[in-house]
Amino acid sequence: MKIAIDAMGGDNAPKAVVEGCIDAANEYEIEIYLVGIKNEIERYLDGVTTKKGKIHILHAEEIITNEDAPVQGIKQKKDSSMVVGLKMVKDEQCHAFLSAGNTGAFLAGSLLKVGRIKGIDRPALAPLLPTVKGGCMLIDAGANMDCKPKNLIQFAIMGSIYMEKVEGISSPRVGLLNVGAEETKGNELTKQSFELLKKSNLNFIGNIEARDIYSGICDVCVCDGFAGNVVLKNTEGLASTIMTLLKEELMKTTISKFGALLLKNSFRSFKKRFDYKEYGGAPFLGINGIMIKAHGSSDGRAIKNAIRQAKLLYDNNCIERIITDLKDTGVNDIE
Amino acid sequence: MKIAIDAMGGDNAPKAVVEGCIDAANEYEIEIYLVGIKNEIERYLDGVTTKKGKIHILHAEEIITNEDAPVQGIKQKKDSSMVVGLKMVKDEQCHAFLSAGNTGAFLAGSLLKVGRIKGIDRPALAPLLPTVKGGCMLIDAGANMDCKPKNLIQFAIMGSIYMEKVEGISSPRVGLLNVGAEETKGNELTKQSFELLKKSNLNFIGNIEARDIYSGICDVCVCDGFAGNVVLKNTEGLASTIMTLLKEELMKTTISKFGALLLKNSFRSFKKRFDYKEYGGAPFLGINGIMIKAHGSSDGRAIKNAIRQAKLLYDNNCIERIITDLKDTGVNDIE
Repeated sequence: MKIAIDAMGGDNAPKAVVEGCIDAANEYEIEIYLVGIKNEIERYLDGVTTKKGKIHILHAEEIITNEDAPVQGIKQKKDSSMVVGLKMVKDEQCHAFLSAGNTGAFLAGSLLKVGRIKGIDRPALAPLLPTVKGGCMLIDAGANMDCKPKNLIQFAIMGSIYMEKVEGISSPRVGLLNVGAEETKGNELTKQSFELLKKSNLNFIGNIEARDIYSGICDVCVCDGFAGNVVLKNTEGLASTIMTLLKEELMKTTISKFGALLLKNSFRSFKKRFDYKEYGGAPFLGINGIMIKAHGSSDGRAIKNAIRQAKLLYDNNCIERIITDLKDTGVNDIE
Repeated sequence: MKIAIDAMGGDNAPKAVVEGCIDAANEYEIEIYLVGIKNEIERYLDGVTTKKGKIHILHAEEIITNEDAPVQGIKQKKDSSMVVGLKMVKDEQCHAFLSAGNTGAFLAGSLLKVGRIKGIDRPALAPLLPTVKGGCMLIDAGANMDCKPKNLIQFAIMGSIYMEKVEGISSPRVGLLNVGAEETKGNELTKQSFELLKKSNLNFIGNIEARDIYSGICDVCVCDGFAGNVVLKNTEGLASTIMTLLKEELMKTTISKFGALLLKNSFRSFKKRFDYKEYGGAPFLGINGIMIKAHGSSDGRAIKNAIRQAKLLYDNNCIERIITDLKDTGVNDIE
């Protein structure tokens, strides 16, 4: 498998990206094209040998930063690591593209440069949320604002395939994000989507509420990109606020500081259970190529896990499977 | 001020409700009508004298439970504590109604029995979320699913009045819940609402993301009831999951148990900072009477604080102020 990786994207680039690539190439038989400013990449790669995979450098002069407007960035910075990487997939020289850079540019670039799978109206960004029982795919988490029921069904199909093939869950439980469990609850979109999901051959478990996501009630949580983005960011914000406030309390007195010291391992073990880095990145499903968006703050481990994700998507022919399932379910006959 | 209180609503009713009423009547010059099954209320009230306020019992034979369908419950259980309490406001014998019971029935009953303020198209349920800097009003948190921009402007006006008059914040900062800070972000609803909010005379600070709510970026967070409900339930679910997992870690070893013991006070102080009970209940704003929905798990303190809320809404003529502000802003000339 060949994968193009944006060496310049993310808060810790290129160091963390190169480190993740080295780890991955030691473990997997893959060919990595690290795209970006050559001598900056070489700083971390020089003299390194890898056990199983190969790493090539593909020079690209420009960088799309978080300050760049997405579409403009893609259109104007033609020699950026993002655009050059995407072009590798478009030209079928690579099977996958991975970036920890500007999310908007990543989404716009995937659509503009690589394009959709035939039959998918709107590709969806689909991160995994940590739950008590493992990961729950949130699809869509922000790529599509005003959605139609048909879009949500396509999200559900793609999410199910991902959770089965990449996470190894047989017959993944699909839940529809809603304001209550009853069938009649929700807005027009969820009411109509409920009917369609019920008729589908997915393992649809019905409406779920945002409070139940973390208990692991479902494997795929389907919603429009507005609601999904609210869940994702609310989760990030609340978790970080709770940790900040807790730290403040623990540093208040000598006794509490001593107590916190005794609990160092417990806190570390706790933190690990809520660590997105274990899951790698968020696939952008529905693009005619494997697209993985890693978190901006990814370290080497997160990048390595994102490469692993891309490899599983490739090894399990997930894109082909999406195309087949779309035909089988007849979702595209729905208006 | 006269307030009707559903003595039978909530997980700890009627005990917690009666206790909260006694505390409130010791502190405020109010007249409380405790509505519910007389002898059950008397069990906790017998022989009690209150310092400043008065408590009356108003017998009602039936109870609307959480299992009752909202509208059906209101229509069929005419002699329930909920319906009899609401009727006290409708008949202008009380200024306010408070319940910790079935939320759906509370919302439906408020609309059916008491009705909207003239000029408010859709009343909104508006709880306060805890933030690092105090409470942030989330409006609407689930009463209205598919909203129009006009509804969101009305929510913003009502929320601002509440935060100014009840929480004492001058010129409350209004944020529009969205997927990004930029003006062009969001779905059709938020894009159109942004334009209207920008033109209003509210202290509109622009789009806010769900991650920023807890840092106290705004005093009023405006959104449709679907997104608001997602935020509210996501917050509840995540906070409780984090606490459960943390407790599990702390109970794992002898050392961690000892550390946890030393941190008992820290955890208590931390918990208090995230305690909704401090805020009382969620006002249902836009109804032609003061309506407070207390949390189902309310204890006496939460009930007392909810009564305090109702009193502040009354003392500051908030309903009249909503009517005036609606006229001034001309929001109702918008289609």
